[in-house]
Amino acid sequence: MAEPATATQAAAPVVALLKDELDIVIPTIRNLDFLEMWRPFFQPYHLIIVQDGDPSKTIKVPEGFDYELYNRNDINRILGPKASCISFKDSACRCFGYMVSKKKYIFTIDDDCFVAKDPSGKAINALEQHIKNLLSPSTPFFFNTLYDPFREGADFVRGYPFSLREGVPTAASHGLWLNIPDYDAPTQLVKPLERNTRYVDAVLTIPKGTLFPMCGMNLAFNRELIGPAMYFGLMGDGQPIGRYDDMWAGWCTKVICDHLGLGVKTGLPYIFHSKASNPFVNLRKEYKGIYWQEEIIPFFQQAVLPKDCTTVQKCYIELAKQVKEKLSKVDPYFDNLADAMVTWIEAWDELNPTEPVPNGKAA
Amino acid sequence: MAEPATATQAAAPVVALLKDELDIVIPTIRNLDFLEMWRPFFQPYHLIIVQDGDPSKTIKVPEGFDYELYNRNDINRILGPKASCISFKDSACRCFGYMVSKKKYIFTIDDDCFVAKDPSGKAINALEQHIKNLLSPSTPFFFNTLYDPFREGADFVRGYPFSLREGVPTAASHGLWLNIPDYDAPTQLVKPLERNTRYVDAVLTIPKGTLFPMCGMNLAFNRELIGPAMYFGLMGDGQPIGRYDDMWAGWCTKVICDHLGLGVKTGLPYIFHSKASNPFVNLRKEYKGIYWQEEIIPFFQQAVLPKDCTTVQKCYIELAKQVKEKLSKVDPYFDNLADAMVTWIEAWDELNPTEPVPNGKAA
Repeated sequence: MAEPATATQAAAPVVALLKDELDIVIPTIRNLDFLEMWRPFFQPYHLIIVQDGDPSKTIKVPEGFDYELYNRNDINRILGPKASCISFKDSACRCFGYMVSKKKYIFTIDDDCFVAKDPSGKAINALEQHIKNLLSPSTPFFFNTLYDPFREGADFVRGYPFSLREGVPTAASHGLWLNIPDYDAPTQLVKPLERNTRYVDAVLTIPKGTLFPMCGMNLAFNRELIGPAMYFGLMGDGQPIGRYDDMWAGWCTKVICDHLGLGVKTGLPYIFHSKASNPFVNLRKEYKGIYWQEEIIPFFQQAVLPKDCTTVQKCYIELAKQVKEKLSKVDPYFDNLADAMVTWIEAWDELNPTEPVPNGKAA
Repeated sequence: MAEPATATQAAAPVVALLKDELDIVIPTIRNLDFLEMWRPFFQPYHLIIVQDGDPSKTIKVPEGFDYELYNRNDINRILGPKASCISFKDSACRCFGYMVSKKKYIFTIDDDCFVAKDPSGKAINALEQHIKNLLSPSTPFFFNTLYDPFREGADFVRGYPFSLREGVPTAASHGLWLNIPDYDAPTQLVKPLERNTRYVDAVLTIPKGTLFPMCGMNLAFNRELIGPAMYFGLMGDGQPIGRYDDMWAGWCTKVICDHLGLGVKTGLPYIFHSKASNPFVNLRKEYKGIYWQEEIIPFFQQAVLPKDCTTVQKCYIELAKQVKEKLSKVDPYFDNLADAMVTWIEAWDELNPTEPVPNGKAA
């Protein structure tokens, strides 16, 4: 657990689950080792790389990978004026990859995340675990004390209502990180040496009505079920805030999943997070968010979506309206963000014109 | 994990945490090995044994333990007519022990629960972990993806609101079981060979608004904070139902904790559950509960306590009123149960006349 697995260790037989149904979306790859580390697990899949910075710089993708790469010029060309909703010089641009994908499932990962080892020393195929999470139901309406009842060797415990044991479709699978934990800048500054060495062998459904901090480092989702909610907001160049892209997506996603009767799981799989980002830079990016989230989170906790919001798009447009109404007073930024949320849905629908959006049970 | 630890293995140095502030409450001890197994961990504490069956039978407690033992005659003598609220011939009678205790904390455990081993093979001091859980705050208002942020090596992750990081007082700590999982009779019948071998190294707060199946096998709580809600109902002799004693206490406790701003944790510690109870007997005890819980759980999910319910007792009396109003139509049993809930509180207050009931933040 203390070190990432090597490529050799990782070269175990791979079951290419959902090979034709899943895209891996990666923001700019700065680390040349990254894809080599993941090669045994990623090579069967199609990669979508979204370059967040200077489009004149080229990213070298090693031989053998099937990929498409988009830089800012591509985004501008494809989306035209609607490209304004995609962040520039920030890894939040990754959500453009969700939009151009034509697959049912997305796995997104950062380039400083390597293959972790389980307590027995075996390299963890994160993708395989995410797929297991996404393909088994969630249980958001009642807590199961032995965690995910659909894992091997587990089940629903005494006292779990039988009417709820069918579960609901799982929309998102949130994976965790060994080594460098995903801390905010203040915590990074206070605990610079803290490392996550605790391997918690659990997957669980985040209960209905409970929000969580969704990290985009190691995340998979069913884009047919929840894709249009996975907008990573306006971050980076020209924006007053950073490092809240995944949080924003997580709040919106959870509220919409709760409304539509879909599930969100967290826990396994772990990746090995190799490098702490600079806490001073992070503090500059985060400080407004740290203040704003004290108002944003109660907003999302209290958000109610009307019954006629029966698709993710309708839910998201409604949330954009409520953001404009209730958060613009916090800062004019939210007025822009609400507009960008609408633009995002317009762009999504333009690129995914005939996509059916099947939902789970309506809430 | 596959076998319980031996007494020798368990004989590691013990920190007698809260020695004068915690009672261990045990329903009838049928297994003579039970206390020997736990001796290294339990001997520093005071035991309260509540004998559930024939008062003429005597329970032999090994030398060296400090204990008091109550049988049915004692319960009748101490409570008089109010003894009607205490179950007979059922381990639900254990809640009488919560009432007569004068300590701040209670740990309750079944006599078929032995010392478990952690993955390194070390005997687990369940009591020590429960105390850690009870002495550190809970975080019911927002989910922390690295689980209990107050454990060593963990903290709140990025995106966790700073205003919620103080947490709330922890009222209850729900521990888990290796080996025989706590399944209902139908699941026991379908999966007779399933064993829980997964050691999940986590403690987490069950979010506000989420109910869970609380098992009484391995449970600790702060009786000053939540004691009067830990009523194990009417089970066993003369009652139409069994094996729902702890579930009932769990639903009431969670609703009241949510209302009073108190926390409930689940996860570590594990005990080794040695013996599956007879699934055919269990089915007979459970079948009405399996049906009734489909109405009971929505009742508790929707229960709202008025603002003037500022103590556990007031909350509990109000819940009793709502049970009578809304569940009596399910079965006349709930009419009796609602009356017994009121009697329980009267008996509690009689035995604990001057006890202060400090609460956490009001919801």
